[in-house]
Amino acid sequence: MKALVYDGPGRRAWTDHPDPGLVDDTDAIVRIDAVTICGTDLHILKGDVPTVERGRILGHEAVGTVVATGSAVTGRRPGDRVLISCISSCGRCSYCRTATYGQCRGGGGWVLGHRIDGVQAELARIPFADTSTHPLPEQVTDEAALSLADIMPTSYEVGARNGRVQPGDTVVIVGAGPIGLAAITTSRLFSPTTVVVIDREPARLSAAKEFGADVLLRPDEDPEVAVAELTGGLGADVAIEAVGIPETFELCTRLVRPGGHVANVGVHGQPATLHLEDLWIRNITITTGLVDTSSTPLLLRMLAAGRLDTSGLVTHRFALDEMDEAYDVFARPQESDALKVALFRT
Amino acid sequence: MKALVYDGPGRRAWTDHPDPGLVDDTDAIVRIDAVTICGTDLHILKGDVPTVERGRILGHEAVGTVVATGSAVTGRRPGDRVLISCISSCGRCSYCRTATYGQCRGGGGWVLGHRIDGVQAELARIPFADTSTHPLPEQVTDEAALSLADIMPTSYEVGARNGRVQPGDTVVIVGAGPIGLAAITTSRLFSPTTVVVIDREPARLSAAKEFGADVLLRPDEDPEVAVAELTGGLGADVAIEAVGIPETFELCTRLVRPGGHVANVGVHGQPATLHLEDLWIRNITITTGLVDTSSTPLLLRMLAAGRLDTSGLVTHRFALDEMDEAYDVFARPQESDALKVALFRT
Repeated sequence: MKALVYDGPGRRAWTDHPDPGLVDDTDAIVRIDAVTICGTDLHILKGDVPTVERGRILGHEAVGTVVATGSAVTGRRPGDRVLISCISSCGRCSYCRTATYGQCRGGGGWVLGHRIDGVQAELARIPFADTSTHPLPEQVTDEAALSLADIMPTSYEVGARNGRVQPGDTVVIVGAGPIGLAAITTSRLFSPTTVVVIDREPARLSAAKEFGADVLLRPDEDPEVAVAELTGGLGADVAIEAVGIPETFELCTRLVRPGGHVANVGVHGQPATLHLEDLWIRNITITTGLVDTSSTPLLLRMLAAGRLDTSGLVTHRFALDEMDEAYDVFARPQESDALKVALFRT
Repeated sequence: MKALVYDGPGRRAWTDHPDPGLVDDTDAIVRIDAVTICGTDLHILKGDVPTVERGRILGHEAVGTVVATGSAVTGRRPGDRVLISCISSCGRCSYCRTATYGQCRGGGGWVLGHRIDGVQAELARIPFADTSTHPLPEQVTDEAALSLADIMPTSYEVGARNGRVQPGDTVVIVGAGPIGLAAITTSRLFSPTTVVVIDREPARLSAAKEFGADVLLRPDEDPEVAVAELTGGLGADVAIEAVGIPETFELCTRLVRPGGHVANVGVHGQPATLHLEDLWIRNITITTGLVDTSSTPLLLRMLAAGRLDTSGLVTHRFALDEMDEAYDVFARPQESDALKVALFRT
């Protein structure tokens, strides 16, 4: 088969690779029908994620068709069309038994395209298939389902839900990349009154407006003053960090009102400064988190019922064999205004 | 009357001062029967709290007897024996209306001994008397009630409750001063299995044992390894910071398990480093907070019912006129093993 193989920092190739086989009884082999690229894959290519070894097939967001199952798999069979979750779940450890699959200690968690081969390939081995894939209703398209592999549950669980977005709230989302845009959609599920989005790229602010943001700000437009004016001097009820650098995290801690929530979604590579000399007295809650994908079934039900709009996230479409070109477009969004790229089996 | 007056950094005096009078219709004048000194008063004396002006009477933890009430006070009358809350509450702003009195925007919050004259005096003016004092049941002694002015609700609300202590948890409390010790008592209300206390002073660790700590550690005893061993390698469910310096806060973020809670109780004067490069993926919740004292009525009911033990906190007792000596003892706990000092009207 063909697969996208990481060959150390800065090097990747869409190349021939042996087909995967069943290893454990709980495995399935899935033919990849649609797959996307995550900002995390770009971090890996920069060498930021040293746990990824050379020779690893990347990718953790895909939709496919089961072609083989191990003897212990009871809920999936060849021919099933499935969403592959970015988080694998052993289903048995204390974390999986409390729906925090992202912290799985039984061999799951974020392993695909990280500790084991991923899904940017023609075929993939998916461990713990019963508890790490989701059968897809017929009316849900591959492209719509793709956004439920990672970014919709991430923005829902780690952003809107950890941030405790409530009806009537003022929510500030810092960063309007795919996760920030998805956070607009998933925050809206809790009926905030005002969603403010901060980004320095005009094209991303335009996209944020399409996704339903009420107020658009650039970082150089004094967002602290603007948010204070919007909220009677109080600050935002919720600030969602969707970039992953110290400056944007620290901005969130300044934008939030006393008693408010800062939900960190961004993947960080360095420490931030926490101004406890200001914050100790302000009743702030800060949350971090890797997605659990425990919300994927409910998001799938909403998608099937027409109650969740994931359109607008995929801006560029490719054939699976155009993997190199897709990476190039995704890695340089300033040139293409790309949000998510999707690749399809042809 | 006599009062403890702040005269700028490093200077205080127990001195003659004009009696307070009613200013607003919602005020009460209270004769102070018992009062204590808080670590925050020492911070003020160091000049760490610049909002406190010279000439201010310090103190925010007291029990007394109402001697006069303004025309709008309906629930208190002269002769009533009351607990004066460290937090005043206007009862009308959006924060008071949602039981977050610490953030009161109507003139309350932490004002006593801070923005208005406090309670280390023979008489004190208490604003918003109906919503800032608590009538005391006869069977509750002045000394027992004193601990409910600040440290018991602080350790309960900002420590145990913000930290979401649950039955079966492993709780680590960093710092065994009065607040850390009270946090043992209030965490125990939620039935954790193991309470670990970390402090460098042997006398404070002994006190922690008296208060019910199960495991005592010094910072130089590699607490990260010790807590990992206690928890099957996971880390603590809850870490409560009760010191107020960057090192102890950062230690808490290393001691907590994935999915755990860090509850900051300490008063900080400088920023800490937040290692988001490690924490972004670990589902950590960090809370900060000034006490609201919304829990004071329930703690008082528990105290009256014999379900809350506050004994052991007051180690040194003085007459009100011995204020200077009490300050000296409280400011040098290494010499006296003092926890809380209490002063009584004679």
